[in-house]
Amino acid sequence: MGATRLPLSLLVLLGTLRVISRVSALPPEPEMSTSMLTENNGTTLHLEEIFLGRCWDFQRLWKVSPEINCTGLWDKFFHAFSNRDPCDQKPSYYDDFFSASAFDTPSAEKTLFWSGTTVLAHEYSNDGLRYTTLEDTLPGYVLNGLRWCGSLSEPWYNEKTCPKCPPTVPWDSFWRAASRSFAKRARGDVYVMLSGTRKDQEGKPIDAFVNTSYFGMEELPNLDQQKVSKVNVWVMHDLIVVPPYREACGKGSLIQLDQELSRRGFLMDCTDDPPFLRHLQCVDDPNSKSCTKAATDGTNTSNAPKITMYKISLSVIIVSAWLVTVNT
Amino acid sequence: MGATRLPLSLLVLLGTLRVISRVSALPPEPEMSTSMLTENNGTTLHLEEIFLGRCWDFQRLWKVSPEINCTGLWDKFFHAFSNRDPCDQKPSYYDDFFSASAFDTPSAEKTLFWSGTTVLAHEYSNDGLRYTTLEDTLPGYVLNGLRWCGSLSEPWYNEKTCPKCPPTVPWDSFWRAASRSFAKRARGDVYVMLSGTRKDQEGKPIDAFVNTSYFGMEELPNLDQQKVSKVNVWVMHDLIVVPPYREACGKGSLIQLDQELSRRGFLMDCTDDPPFLRHLQCVDDPNSKSCTKAATDGTNTSNAPKITMYKISLSVIIVSAWLVTVNT
Repeated sequence: MGATRLPLSLLVLLGTLRVISRVSALPPEPEMSTSMLTENNGTTLHLEEIFLGRCWDFQRLWKVSPEINCTGLWDKFFHAFSNRDPCDQKPSYYDDFFSASAFDTPSAEKTLFWSGTTVLAHEYSNDGLRYTTLEDTLPGYVLNGLRWCGSLSEPWYNEKTCPKCPPTVPWDSFWRAASRSFAKRARGDVYVMLSGTRKDQEGKPIDAFVNTSYFGMEELPNLDQQKVSKVNVWVMHDLIVVPPYREACGKGSLIQLDQELSRRGFLMDCTDDPPFLRHLQCVDDPNSKSCTKAATDGTNTSNAPKITMYKISLSVIIVSAWLVTVNT
Repeated sequence: MGATRLPLSLLVLLGTLRVISRVSALPPEPEMSTSMLTENNGTTLHLEEIFLGRCWDFQRLWKVSPEINCTGLWDKFFHAFSNRDPCDQKPSYYDDFFSASAFDTPSAEKTLFWSGTTVLAHEYSNDGLRYTTLEDTLPGYVLNGLRWCGSLSEPWYNEKTCPKCPPTVPWDSFWRAASRSFAKRARGDVYVMLSGTRKDQEGKPIDAFVNTSYFGMEELPNLDQQKVSKVNVWVMHDLIVVPPYREACGKGSLIQLDQELSRRGFLMDCTDDPPFLRHLQCVDDPNSKSCTKAATDGTNTSNAPKITMYKISLSVIIVSAWLVTVNT
């Protein structure tokens, strides 16, 4: 137990900071990829066993029928990157893998894209039970949080080090291909969760819609106008940030996103901080000002209506006083 | 895609009903075990691969060091039930398995027990990042949602049918042993999530604290008075049920739980519907009366303040009119 105490405490801390390792380590957003390059470990230990276990588990959970042969799927995946230079990576290398796994992904009817909202989006999707993120589909599920790269000598993958391949990482091409395939299959109403209070590592604000992000580069351009009826955008703001917000529906980069979607023939419906997501944020910060008004039967501590009430009452008193004065 | 659409729709429905298969199919609560006996499938397909994948994945996520040999752990698990009559199951058969896995479980400092609150408890624990349920520890994680039973002929486990072993299921003894081991290792403040609005299959109310549940039979009696400082009980009520509640802190079976804990030398701290958990319930039902007062900056759709405002304004107008009349 003693041996694991430190890393566990660290993970609890990471959890508090709303960073989940299995997710944050994954689809690196292009604009963030430079920071990912400090990572210099090799292929995830026991990659094949984790892949196979997750592949069978996914099929058990979602009752996939007819069953996909997970060993065959692994072979296609391994073939895409093994026996190559670790930086020789193209999205098309994974074509066979995606063909073999594509028809087994969960419902494409509640597709949830995300950018800059990794933790909240996945907590909300709830392993695909509420909404379906890429990581809740078979290809995303089996590789989520893992790392891999090829080698030109045996065992044909690099066990010790996955090198920097500027401007990105060796597994970036997989996530590009996965994002495209995911977007192409979306239908009906689709959902996008963005952050209106996103910052870079130096604390400088980042736009909610970044056209070089996975969403901007791979997903949005691959939405099928014949299949997608509406794009619902949720712009989330951290609880500690006080409005007015620089980035919100009808402001900043959201105008650009609206234009981009219109140009492609999609209807956009934008909502700032929808209540169901606000509640999810409040779970970890119930004492925040935006949360204390909430979820406690019968109590209401909001200031806004009181101010309005006082203003109206004051106006009535002033008018009445004036009437009294005029009449006397 | 067509082949998977029906089961997926079903799962979405199940999700809506707040029933997650991987969790609900697991530790059957003794008082519910009769209903589990309609289950007549055999050992989970690809049990060994799922076990191994999860075992390596768990160690990767929690950075377990030194690494546990998952193949060795599987051997100990398989030895406990294989080559036996499927109903020949005792918790002690798993002693070797628990010895080998025990020291690698996550932090015992934020232990969360649950009874009748499977879905909410696991959504809140968030894979062990917020709190640690049994299913967030290595032994619970690797077997969660799976099914197994032995056979006296090759391959020494039953692939086709796991029989009823009244009053329970073949894997019940595993979860009894797991619950005991989990409770024995808890320290500091521990937490228990119970349901104050629980019902059986006929809609008849069930007590929040059931002394024949896993919590009542295996966990509570195995808490170590030297290690556990306080037992914090959260009594949750479904949003659709209107108070007053039959079962709540200081009422019904919670009195019995308080007495039972006192008798064993533990301090109990009981809270009905703590706000952080109310928020989590509101995520799926934001329009519920308990939720609409909440988590929307600056806007307020509650009727209460408006009525008060109109009343005050009306009073001011009447008084003013009276003043005008008096003065003219």
